[in-house]
Amino acid sequence: MHICIDKAHAMPAYRQLYSQIAAAIASGELGAGAMLPAIRVMAKDLGVARNTVEAAYKQLALEGYAKGQRGIGYIVEDLDFSVLEDEPSLPDERALIEQSESARNREPLGGARGCSFDFCYGDRHPTMLPLSVLRSLADAALSGSASADAVRYIDPFGLYGLRDQIARYLHSTRGIRCVPEQIILQPGTQVALRNIVSIFPAEERIVAMEEPGYDAARYAFMCAQCALRPIPVHEGEKAFLDALLASDAHLAMVTPSNQFPLGFIMSLSARLKLVEWAKESGSYIIEDDYCCEYRYRSSPSPALRSIDPQRTIYLGTMSKILSPAMRISYIVLPAELLARWNAAHSGDYCSLAWLDQEILRSFMASSAWSRYIHTTKSLYQRHHDRLVRCLERELGDRVRIFGADAGLHLLVEDVDGRSQDELMRLALEKDVRVYPTDQYWASSSHPMDSMVLMGFSGIAAESIGEGVRRLARAWG
Amino acid sequence: MHICIDKAHAMPAYRQLYSQIAAAIASGELGAGAMLPAIRVMAKDLGVARNTVEAAYKQLALEGYAKGQRGIGYIVEDLDFSVLEDEPSLPDERALIEQSESARNREPLGGARGCSFDFCYGDRHPTMLPLSVLRSLADAALSGSASADAVRYIDPFGLYGLRDQIARYLHSTRGIRCVPEQIILQPGTQVALRNIVSIFPAEERIVAMEEPGYDAARYAFMCAQCALRPIPVHEGEKAFLDALLASDAHLAMVTPSNQFPLGFIMSLSARLKLVEWAKESGSYIIEDDYCCEYRYRSSPSPALRSIDPQRTIYLGTMSKILSPAMRISYIVLPAELLARWNAAHSGDYCSLAWLDQEILRSFMASSAWSRYIHTTKSLYQRHHDRLVRCLERELGDRVRIFGADAGLHLLVEDVDGRSQDELMRLALEKDVRVYPTDQYWASSSHPMDSMVLMGFSGIAAESIGEGVRRLARAWG
Repeated sequence: MHICIDKAHAMPAYRQLYSQIAAAIASGELGAGAMLPAIRVMAKDLGVARNTVEAAYKQLALEGYAKGQRGIGYIVEDLDFSVLEDEPSLPDERALIEQSESARNREPLGGARGCSFDFCYGDRHPTMLPLSVLRSLADAALSGSASADAVRYIDPFGLYGLRDQIARYLHSTRGIRCVPEQIILQPGTQVALRNIVSIFPAEERIVAMEEPGYDAARYAFMCAQCALRPIPVHEGEKAFLDALLASDAHLAMVTPSNQFPLGFIMSLSARLKLVEWAKESGSYIIEDDYCCEYRYRSSPSPALRSIDPQRTIYLGTMSKILSPAMRISYIVLPAELLARWNAAHSGDYCSLAWLDQEILRSFMASSAWSRYIHTTKSLYQRHHDRLVRCLERELGDRVRIFGADAGLHLLVEDVDGRSQDELMRLALEKDVRVYPTDQYWASSSHPMDSMVLMGFSGIAAESIGEGVRRLARAWG
Repeated sequence: MHICIDKAHAMPAYRQLYSQIAAAIASGELGAGAMLPAIRVMAKDLGVARNTVEAAYKQLALEGYAKGQRGIGYIVEDLDFSVLEDEPSLPDERALIEQSESARNREPLGGARGCSFDFCYGDRHPTMLPLSVLRSLADAALSGSASADAVRYIDPFGLYGLRDQIARYLHSTRGIRCVPEQIILQPGTQVALRNIVSIFPAEERIVAMEEPGYDAARYAFMCAQCALRPIPVHEGEKAFLDALLASDAHLAMVTPSNQFPLGFIMSLSARLKLVEWAKESGSYIIEDDYCCEYRYRSSPSPALRSIDPQRTIYLGTMSKILSPAMRISYIVLPAELLARWNAAHSGDYCSLAWLDQEILRSFMASSAWSRYIHTTKSLYQRHHDRLVRCLERELGDRVRIFGADAGLHLLVEDVDGRSQDELMRLALEKDVRVYPTDQYWASSSHPMDSMVLMGFSGIAAESIGEGVRRLARAWG
């Protein structure tokens, strides 16, 4: 067995010796029962200290390559390496990995990179994040006394201080009365929905979903083995309520303050009927209030949760008001469901990192928060107004616009009835990206095929006009 | 209807007007079909601008309290508020909330607050986090060009740059060869385990768990509807392997480099047999390498994943090397499983916040990282050595020590065979907290009832000596 130790090498000498002997044993060069050279001899031969050799032998013994026997020395163990002979065939691995990557690169909700006029929905424009504020808050979080929490397990419900701020925020902005003990922080709406469903027995996991509705919610429900009941929202409130009452649903997932994606606002009488349905059928309403902050021609209507605190599970998110990269959503549970939650999630840890929670807590507790909300609202107001104005001017009555006056996107329908694929293709030819709406429908055949989504939160204000002009040329 | 507008009030006048009319409608004071006063009249009576009244009426119409009719005015809608009459009985709510809170306050894995000598396991001591480094990295993250990602949806697998750093780290420290495309970031080990299990068909969710083993893993498997097969680890490797081979398990969850909680290191021959079992039975091994960094008398043994990249699903975490409050764990998938993962998780978003990922990425890419690892290791080495020394000096042969020389905890067994509850109670009387081990056993009756856990990562070095002296008095 030839061993060489390179003392200049970064790897310590004992480690070099260990790995060369281990390799010799693995290769069979050193067979079962073979004696390793005596420590003093090996040390002399290699010109290293005895304890270097001893450390290498100890490591080999520790890992079971050899065993040391008092007075005799180290003897190679009887090991069967045959299992390792079929080496991983790397080219195949690479192929599998490449397949996986191409499979993963499906159309993102956020903007696909590399398009000059991208009316994406999920993403924000970089300039919209109050970076300097966040910097100073992060700095304070990692300096202050709060940082003691930075090394601890967090309350499974999330930082109490943040839940307290959210409770205050919901009261002042949405008229919701709740205490922090009812608020559970979650890393995104999808996870929240799965965790909500899991507190109900399997036979009650029948969910009424708005049709069209939020595809990621539908996905989450399907992952949680729910039976889904699509309830049409595009045929008016009466049709919606009739279908809901006729269904066997135990849960209804709704977006009353700004129906996604169509942008309707649910009327008060429909809200009251919805609550009545829940009370009489013993069902629960999941109110996804994902975008309540953005209302451009009126104040936001009160949350369903503020009308009915007992049957409404409220869902909020920081993705729209701050950033989807922050991954902070929250559930407001009716008090009567807390016991069920604890039973279903008794061993869960908090999935949210401490730093982001502490930054948000201190942000919401500061005067900068309300200023920020106000700035963001008026910023998106300008984007919204400009987009609507440009669409009317450039495309006039060649399109129908849905969902204006609220939220962060519009739906645009081509009066000539061209398919959304064609509309997107034509737009891309002019370096403009608009987005499909097919995925929001559970049924493959639906009446709004020639409708595309245009977000206005991820595009620079100055690009909106030119983007729409190009769209007009593309579709004209 | 009496209305008063307080112009000094923070709430805008139209909002005050709106809410008082809404309240009058809800109370029935203004019944269905009633006309709202003409805008000019109302404005004159209240001494406010017409558009103030108009805004209030529009909001009422928008929300469905009233409808506007050209040339006539605003008429109150026919609404049924009876559903709201059974008001939420707040005292009951409070009771439910208090019950829930007391149910949630079970013994945390991290240190319970308010005990002078707390040998907790999960938490770190505040001084151990490199706060100044993290501060500057957070500052850079929120300044630099990277911050463009701060407003976008993140790759569902996590930041590529961080996965790249982890791949390099695993190669240099654990001999693991993998590419970033095989690494999936997860908010904690529990979530990772659930997501791993969900890629296997229901009938294959039969999991061999080490007995005793990590209770949070057992919990995660149970939540994922797995059938569990406890495999004894305390009776030696042969018993372990025999039981595993005799079982019908399709997955084996193991901690080879530092068995949790007993601290054994799996020998090479056992590792080889384990891999052989997986290959022959077509099963997969989940290697939880939760604490590979901390080895005090030798180098860490190579990861199972480095021996077998095809059948081993590797699981790592930043909870031990950085902080459990960071919630960053990661999976290294065999290439063959990527397609299954994508099929099972096609619609998942990334659950980890961008900021923490970017901070960790830049930390691992910097020279500060290796310095930090080295400092932390030697720090815990000192804690470990001191604790062992003190236990031997103060308690001598009245206790047996398990799991020394590695990890962040020891197990201490009372030779007199007193129960762990009694040992903990006696310790608490001297203001010392040691932790139970019962929860690590699936079977209620097990042979190690008089064994308690003592962590040394959450306690100050200078408190260890006094803590153990008190323990000696408590148990003496």
